[in-house]
Amino acid sequence: MAQRKMILDLDTGIDDALALAYAVADPRVDLIGIVSSYGNNTLEVTTQNALDLLHLLGQDDVPVFKGLPHSSTTDHFDVMQVSKDIHGDNGVGDVTLPHAPRVAETTSGVDFIIEAAHQYAEDLIIVPTGPLTNLAAAIEKDPAIAKLIGDVTLMGGALTVRGNVTSVTEANIHQDAEAADFVFKNQANLTMVGLDVTLRTLLSKKETKQWRELGQKGEIYADIFDFYIDAYDRLGIDHRGAALHDPLAVGIAIEPTYATFLDLNMEVTVDQASGDYGRTIGDNTKLLDGTSSRAAINVDVARYTRDFMDLTKAVLTD
Amino acid sequence: MAQRKMILDLDTGIDDALALAYAVADPRVDLIGIVSSYGNNTLEVTTQNALDLLHLLGQDDVPVFKGLPHSSTTDHFDVMQVSKDIHGDNGVGDVTLPHAPRVAETTSGVDFIIEAAHQYAEDLIIVPTGPLTNLAAAIEKDPAIAKLIGDVTLMGGALTVRGNVTSVTEANIHQDAEAADFVFKNQANLTMVGLDVTLRTLLSKKETKQWRELGQKGEIYADIFDFYIDAYDRLGIDHRGAALHDPLAVGIAIEPTYATFLDLNMEVTVDQASGDYGRTIGDNTKLLDGTSSRAAINVDVARYTRDFMDLTKAVLTD
Repeated sequence: MAQRKMILDLDTGIDDALALAYAVADPRVDLIGIVSSYGNNTLEVTTQNALDLLHLLGQDDVPVFKGLPHSSTTDHFDVMQVSKDIHGDNGVGDVTLPHAPRVAETTSGVDFIIEAAHQYAEDLIIVPTGPLTNLAAAIEKDPAIAKLIGDVTLMGGALTVRGNVTSVTEANIHQDAEAADFVFKNQANLTMVGLDVTLRTLLSKKETKQWRELGQKGEIYADIFDFYIDAYDRLGIDHRGAALHDPLAVGIAIEPTYATFLDLNMEVTVDQASGDYGRTIGDNTKLLDGTSSRAAINVDVARYTRDFMDLTKAVLTD
Repeated sequence: MAQRKMILDLDTGIDDALALAYAVADPRVDLIGIVSSYGNNTLEVTTQNALDLLHLLGQDDVPVFKGLPHSSTTDHFDVMQVSKDIHGDNGVGDVTLPHAPRVAETTSGVDFIIEAAHQYAEDLIIVPTGPLTNLAAAIEKDPAIAKLIGDVTLMGGALTVRGNVTSVTEANIHQDAEAADFVFKNQANLTMVGLDVTLRTLLSKKETKQWRELGQKGEIYADIFDFYIDAYDRLGIDHRGAALHDPLAVGIAIEPTYATFLDLNMEVTVDQASGDYGRTIGDNTKLLDGTSSRAAINVDVARYTRDFMDLTKAVLTD
């Protein structure tokens, strides 16, 4: 099988850092670029984190494109305190990364998505792990790409479990519910990898200890993820480990058999007065219609975690 | 295969009337009794409707037991206007039924459930199609039955689609969210048949016309369900037909292969201030635990509707 092309749209972010490592490590995809997003931190910080992590992993040839700096309904973005609590002030667990020798591309992230959609079409997989602002803007600018892109597999939302911002909404969707609703209603071949499955997929210090034995890269990644594990424990999110949110989306994008899916036309509540703003839910008006959208509702945790460790250990070995 | 025993816990109700006909018609189950519930109408009206419909179907030997008259958190029940709009003032589409020659049993519905659980154990299927007040009360009175009863397959809730009372809650669950939460957390072998699947399973006047040709029983059932179809149309719920909510639960209870399921520990939001009161949702604290609870998330509409029509036509033929 030919290698498919992958774009990661990251708000790097601790689990984004692992999504990046996973995509670099998996021989089944060719990582053709990273689009940065505000979210876990500001656009400036997440862009630099992506550049620095690629440098750490010896991937200075993978281009990084700057996405949009705030949501589609605001003109400004402030990092939430809970984001700093979970990801550290610098987005990567307050670990100091070796500085990349280059800067982001001059082409915008939105234009890069559009160009890649036309160039690679069904061979292109896009994995957004933050707000859906960039992808929504690209589809608004060039609606044809919604049917050109082979697959969009996003980390975000919560269909069969409670949210993590409120009981009804998940953080990535909540950052820009309007953009998410637009993507859910317009993007073909959409797979939602939400809290339904990512909260089942935990990594503990038993696993990060294995990275630590691999050398400098493994040590840095272990330091970053241990911050996340400690935050999960301290904030009472989970005492058993921290969720592999973003790398699970990359894994399912490459190998869908990790998950089981519900085919469903979905939408996002954008009515602020509704009481369930930012909720990802089936579109009741389209229950009898066909769909190319689906939500991951269960996951083979043992198989995914084993493959995740094999891949990350390979790429983190000095 | 031996015939399993079935108890219907009905708040009859138009679609309850069809659940009753379906259970009478299907040779794979022995309908050992009906427990009545407040819900679509008062306990007095729903009890009489069950007696009268059994009489119409020549089933005066199936006992009817009175359930509880109001929710577990109130001391009174008033029929909601929307229930009258959908089910008619008398619960059966304002159709006058031939009066049954008998009254309900003196044993309470709660005690009947407890006795049947001990007598039939794994051979017993209970199908609640209204509030879960009766079953919760039975489990509270005799906690052992929660593991004795073979299967509870309930019509209620909405997991992957919007609710029908508010965006987050379905009518049966909303009537007594506290009882529902208690049942979801305590009852083993629980299957939720919610709006996720019942809103996909529509019946139109094309089908009720087929009943009308069968004689008096078919004529009465067609009149009753046409009221429901007209109400769905008038209220803008669906212009294509009306949902087979309660009979779908009976069908899936007898033949689970009509549906696909998600195994999930579920709970019901009972916090009034939460904004999602009455929501049926995965229990995030039990995502890594085993479960014997599941939600129907998709349904083979064509196969179910075909079998539904075959069964109902057989039982409605004079």
